[in-house]
Amino acid sequence: MKISILGCTGSIGESTLEVVRKSKGFIKIASLAAHSNAEKLSRHASEFGVSKTVLTSQTKNPEALEELATDPEIKTVVMAIVGFAALKPTIAALKAGKTVALANKEALVTCGELLTALAEKHGGKIIPVDSEHNALFQALQGHSIEQVDKLIITGSGGPFRGKTRSELQSVTIAQALNHPKWKMGPKITIDSATLMNKGLEYIEARWVFGLPDDKLKILIHPQSLVHGIVQFIDGSMLAHLSPPDMKAAISYALYYPQRQPGAVEPLDLVKAQKLEFFEVDYENFPCVNLAQKALKKGGVAPTVLNAANETAVQAFLDEKISFLSISDMIEKTLESAPRQNLDIQSIFAADAWARQKCQENILSLRH
Amino acid sequence: MKISILGCTGSIGESTLEVVRKSKGFIKIASLAAHSNAEKLSRHASEFGVSKTVLTSQTKNPEALEELATDPEIKTVVMAIVGFAALKPTIAALKAGKTVALANKEALVTCGELLTALAEKHGGKIIPVDSEHNALFQALQGHSIEQVDKLIITGSGGPFRGKTRSELQSVTIAQALNHPKWKMGPKITIDSATLMNKGLEYIEARWVFGLPDDKLKILIHPQSLVHGIVQFIDGSMLAHLSPPDMKAAISYALYYPQRQPGAVEPLDLVKAQKLEFFEVDYENFPCVNLAQKALKKGGVAPTVLNAANETAVQAFLDEKISFLSISDMIEKTLESAPRQNLDIQSIFAADAWARQKCQENILSLRH
Repeated sequence: MKISILGCTGSIGESTLEVVRKSKGFIKIASLAAHSNAEKLSRHASEFGVSKTVLTSQTKNPEALEELATDPEIKTVVMAIVGFAALKPTIAALKAGKTVALANKEALVTCGELLTALAEKHGGKIIPVDSEHNALFQALQGHSIEQVDKLIITGSGGPFRGKTRSELQSVTIAQALNHPKWKMGPKITIDSATLMNKGLEYIEARWVFGLPDDKLKILIHPQSLVHGIVQFIDGSMLAHLSPPDMKAAISYALYYPQRQPGAVEPLDLVKAQKLEFFEVDYENFPCVNLAQKALKKGGVAPTVLNAANETAVQAFLDEKISFLSISDMIEKTLESAPRQNLDIQSIFAADAWARQKCQENILSLRH
Repeated sequence: MKISILGCTGSIGESTLEVVRKSKGFIKIASLAAHSNAEKLSRHASEFGVSKTVLTSQTKNPEALEELATDPEIKTVVMAIVGFAALKPTIAALKAGKTVALANKEALVTCGELLTALAEKHGGKIIPVDSEHNALFQALQGHSIEQVDKLIITGSGGPFRGKTRSELQSVTIAQALNHPKWKMGPKITIDSATLMNKGLEYIEARWVFGLPDDKLKILIHPQSLVHGIVQFIDGSMLAHLSPPDMKAAISYALYYPQRQPGAVEPLDLVKAQKLEFFEVDYENFPCVNLAQKALKKGGVAPTVLNAANETAVQAFLDEKISFLSISDMIEKTLESAPRQNLDIQSIFAADAWARQKCQENILSLRH
């Protein structure tokens, strides 16, 4: 089976390469793309004998990613690009009837409704590679969606679980980047600290599984071993467990409906000692609530949420705003967002508008 | 859908009646059978408007249960008879192509290989109603058995979890009957205290799922909320959770592949506080190991195990032997068991032989 890996130098991309290494030739790489790390891209291309590569920061072809994503010789695109940039190649791949192993949260957050409709229309398939949605996807196999009472997404609670608002006032970038369970890129690690990652996943689940938001729930699970739980109408639950290793989700997406032997080490539940679950602390982690409100508002509101979040997180990483200001900036931007119809043009416009507006909000904070 | 409930006055039978009450006419009862509780049988028959009833302790027709189990108007037989007596009507039902919602452990333990072959041959279906096997059955839907690395059966560990052998020396019947999590009949409650129930379930799983014993594992889980876990070859796991209420399994068996809305209250995982898993204490609870040995030995050895267990448990309940003597008596009986081919006649012979032999072992203990 041939695949394209877009975003091959990030943490998801490199985990995908490990899955390919272990596949004993079952998975072959047709093409690789990266944003700016030319040295890594060339190393990966050489290891896997890949001739088609794209370095998006250098290419003069604005459709280079779309071309890789629609390459007739591939079956699956691993979409491991972070942020809004994944949107166009994802759309192209689905229109070409490809399976998209989708690790990017933002594409579904901003236009999940459009993407799932596109997939259905063109025979494309979205398999979520987020560990939570992949967990739910696995637990739902063999069960009809009508039997679902609740889909429960779990989250570790991040490095600041249990902290009060006043304690959160002074947290540093280093503290926010020190995630207790998952090793990920900086943007997603900050999203885990604010719990915006759960907010984005909540919106994502809405579209991946086609369920209304009263059937979606988030629980905090500090051990990060249960990634998703399906609660059925009869009161039974199926929970998916694996080590906090993205290879569990990636390998399932690539092998589906089969499984890769030994993709990850199975958990030792005795050594795990205990599994605990807590309600979300909505008061001290307002990002979850902002995401839920954006989903309820609909239209381009999730796009504005996502763009404002990217902008605010970058400002935090650049030491321009404090940790608590991240949610304040998103809320402020979201409040002034225009109502617009949901189409690709409006989404791009709303994205650009929100980045600009959030920057203004950040600047006005400093003066 | 019409069903027959054999063993309608025991705890599984009465839970089945509750499922039927809640089904709003979806499930209708064609017939009811009980062993000796005439008053309860007649009360249930009257409530559900059932004309065909059998009281096995009183009937002169030795094939009365087989007749109910093969009644052309029913789709499903709920086999809620405790012990070896369930075997003949189970065989009859499977030969008639019925679905058997099988709550009885012994039928599968003594001739699981024969029953699953019969079911396949005649288009019958066994849906396990044991909570552990039903949990695994649910978790396996949509996944091929070739993807399974381990099936993990959980057990609460019973009332004596953590006790040493010297502490177990003096336990009373009342203590053994005081199960921390499940409300069940006395025979099964004692099996839970010796952990023989897990041993029997281990053998049962061998046949229900057609997997060799190196793919079966038992874990102690004191909270009794996770009932079964499927570990796949890629390292992912799916765990089934529900309250410790047999209606979860019974309703699934009756509604399969659908589900009964509101069959049980879903768990509140936050209130549950924690889920823990421990290895089995094989040293102080030798019954698990006896069952595993009997399965390895094969042939009629599981039948001998089961019959000796029934005999020894009854002797314990009759205050004839101590708690620790239960496993001693089973072991002694098992050691002297003859090797025999596996056919129905040999099983009946081995059952009778083992009951006699175990009685002798018990008597020789007292003199």
